[in-house]
Amino acid sequence: MRMYDIIDKKKNGMELSTEEIKEMIRAYVEEEIPDYQMAAWLMAVYFQGMSNRELKDLTLAMAHSGEMIDLSPISGIKVDKHSTGGVGDKTTLAIAPIVAACGEKVAKMSGKGLGFTGGTIDKLESIPGFETGLDQKTFFENVNHIGLSVIGQTANITPADKKLYALRDVTATVDSIPLIAASVMSKKLAAGSDKILLDVTCGSGAFMKTLEDAVKLAEIMVAIGEQAGRETVALITNMDVPLGETIGNALEVEEIIDLLQGNAKEDLKEVCLALASNMLYLSKYESDKNITLEDCKKMAEEKIQDGSALNKLKEMVNSQHGQVDAIENTDKLPQAAYYYEMVSDSSGYVTGMNAEQCGIASMLLGAGREKKDSEIAYGAGIRLLKKTGDPLEVGDTMAILYSDSYETFQEAEKVLRIAYQIGGEAPQKDKLIYVRVSKAGVEYY
Amino acid sequence: MRMYDIIDKKKNGMELSTEEIKEMIRAYVEEEIPDYQMAAWLMAVYFQGMSNRELKDLTLAMAHSGEMIDLSPISGIKVDKHSTGGVGDKTTLAIAPIVAACGEKVAKMSGKGLGFTGGTIDKLESIPGFETGLDQKTFFENVNHIGLSVIGQTANITPADKKLYALRDVTATVDSIPLIAASVMSKKLAAGSDKILLDVTCGSGAFMKTLEDAVKLAEIMVAIGEQAGRETVALITNMDVPLGETIGNALEVEEIIDLLQGNAKEDLKEVCLALASNMLYLSKYESDKNITLEDCKKMAEEKIQDGSALNKLKEMVNSQHGQVDAIENTDKLPQAAYYYEMVSDSSGYVTGMNAEQCGIASMLLGAGREKKDSEIAYGAGIRLLKKTGDPLEVGDTMAILYSDSYETFQEAEKVLRIAYQIGGEAPQKDKLIYVRVSKAGVEYY
Repeated sequence: MRMYDIIDKKKNGMELSTEEIKEMIRAYVEEEIPDYQMAAWLMAVYFQGMSNRELKDLTLAMAHSGEMIDLSPISGIKVDKHSTGGVGDKTTLAIAPIVAACGEKVAKMSGKGLGFTGGTIDKLESIPGFETGLDQKTFFENVNHIGLSVIGQTANITPADKKLYALRDVTATVDSIPLIAASVMSKKLAAGSDKILLDVTCGSGAFMKTLEDAVKLAEIMVAIGEQAGRETVALITNMDVPLGETIGNALEVEEIIDLLQGNAKEDLKEVCLALASNMLYLSKYESDKNITLEDCKKMAEEKIQDGSALNKLKEMVNSQHGQVDAIENTDKLPQAAYYYEMVSDSSGYVTGMNAEQCGIASMLLGAGREKKDSEIAYGAGIRLLKKTGDPLEVGDTMAILYSDSYETFQEAEKVLRIAYQIGGEAPQKDKLIYVRVSKAGVEYY
Repeated sequence: MRMYDIIDKKKNGMELSTEEIKEMIRAYVEEEIPDYQMAAWLMAVYFQGMSNRELKDLTLAMAHSGEMIDLSPISGIKVDKHSTGGVGDKTTLAIAPIVAACGEKVAKMSGKGLGFTGGTIDKLESIPGFETGLDQKTFFENVNHIGLSVIGQTANITPADKKLYALRDVTATVDSIPLIAASVMSKKLAAGSDKILLDVTCGSGAFMKTLEDAVKLAEIMVAIGEQAGRETVALITNMDVPLGETIGNALEVEEIIDLLQGNAKEDLKEVCLALASNMLYLSKYESDKNITLEDCKKMAEEKIQDGSALNKLKEMVNSQHGQVDAIENTDKLPQAAYYYEMVSDSSGYVTGMNAEQCGIASMLLGAGREKKDSEIAYGAGIRLLKKTGDPLEVGDTMAILYSDSYETFQEAEKVLRIAYQIGGEAPQKDKLIYVRVSKAGVEYY
């Protein structure tokens, strides 16, 4: 096997064999294949795509390039959830406690966020004392005992993906649907859960800008999961507008606590319930073939109403050495040193928002990482008081900006103002959940 | 300017600016851009192509990346000739003396051949004593004095092309028409001639396998030359079958001497006359607007008949310290230690030949370089006694193989036998010159 021939075959639209793909990934991880050859191959994949069979082989080769986590010490069915990312995407913080409150197991390993906002791990670490660096034994015990634990990724999972992702990032080959699918699914397969729920975000704040692309990505990932023997469902959710009211780590934790107390923005609640009920369905259907998605949704809503989901969050915080009183009294969460109210200078309606711009503004305030080793300001971020569809008068506060350094406000405000589109007429209300993709097919809502 | 953005633009089919292309080539030569980013860009170009304007900018940037040869010490119009390569392609050895005998100037710098057979320099160096390492001053003097000189490329010409070509060679991006065009034309522009004749080979022994691709490449190269202010003409010639009777360095020199003595295979003579008359036309039209291609062809034929072209070859050999008596008596050219007659075991007609396979067989015999530093056996090679269209009886000698090591015959014969297609009916005779491309357009023959 020569890498030259593998590049040439892919360039000419021919299918690579299982052996070729396995050997390529092995040799690349072991640095027998130089980056310049892999870069040419990645660009050829961008243009020629991959067959489902090739993609399954690539994903499995990447998954097996490092440690495959064995979750068997945890009893019952383990369901994992992954989001392709978005601005203000805080759903894991709500869903994990809801699902655990329903008696299921959530054992989640998360990476740190690189980009506009922190990842789930950063959000949890904004809770004073919260530790995400548990060893595997404690992690398994916690999940067995209270039903959930979220820790940072410490194991040497998918080194092939890390190396490939770093290369894609500098060769403009990140936005390839098959390469995104292989990257996500290789990590999910290595992470060891039995079932996988994917939140494929779609819109201005997501990788997938069009519904067509999002459906393609979702279908491919579901196919990979099913071929690898892991039942997989994907929901395509709206990321044209930041999800919920807040962007920023402690701000998002606070919003999730609100939601678990029954006081949520409708959009955030709807998306969280859809994701939670699909996770529950994946898990519970194994023992109850009569259960419906509607049943699961009702169950999830009950666990919010009766406070048991919030209790699960507290149990997890407690088990990971976080201060539970910061959950009970959110004033004890990190607070930014300064805030600034951005006021409307026109009237009409918010007709649209660029979620990516909102994310950039939030990063400028200190809520995200520009570089791998940037420090996150936990209290920094944005509270969006006006979102798409809201009426607006001159002088209305559109958003509150939070930062530890006053001088960031000017630049962040400039970016955030550009993110808002204002017009004379109320826009049509857009769907929050577009599509559900499962082995049964594509279901449009 | 970030290389990332340049890759991304090309990937998305957008046009790069002149500044972006110039800066990219400068930064790549100065090793500010890593190979992995350039490899991704090259593959994006393979799929997205380049506009004529981009291609002109790329070619000029590559040409100016090193020394631009100034041929002004040579009086008169200088015409360069370049072939995109083929098996048994020995035309330069005949054309240069013919054109010089007609009073024009040929100042040619050639690279060493890497591949099936040696390049023009290797062929000349098979003449005992012949020196190709003249300094520029002597080179210019020789051209002024006797009308022609062919030397090896010593100047630091187009380092960008050398670096890019080496990368294309290992990333399966050699067969991109715009990249081939920029590579050839950057060298031609840097080499300093006023006019350029391109021999674009087409068929099984050439880079361009189809006439359509060959026309595309020819049109692009002519457009680049014209945009850079150098009149350029391209002939597309048949390389389905090796040109002439011989493949191998001294063997090809001998065949050229035969031709200049008036005893040539028809195919070789036709191609040489077409190329020579086009070179003459490019040069002579400047001072005589009434001249025609037909006039130039007659002139070239006369110089063969009256022996003046052969004399020019001898003058060049003499001026470059080669033994002229080896031209007068070709037994004094290097001879292989062994020869082997390949005999037909069937009867019928040669219905086709794979020129590339013939070239590989010749390389196996020692006539070409497998690696950059391989030694060439000057006497090695193949004499093809039967070619496409020839009738064949059992027992006929199809080809004579020459080598310094007897053990190479078996493998070479195996490859050469595969190159021959034998059938019951004589095939249709194919054209030798398909197309002429000039600023006036495409002319099919």
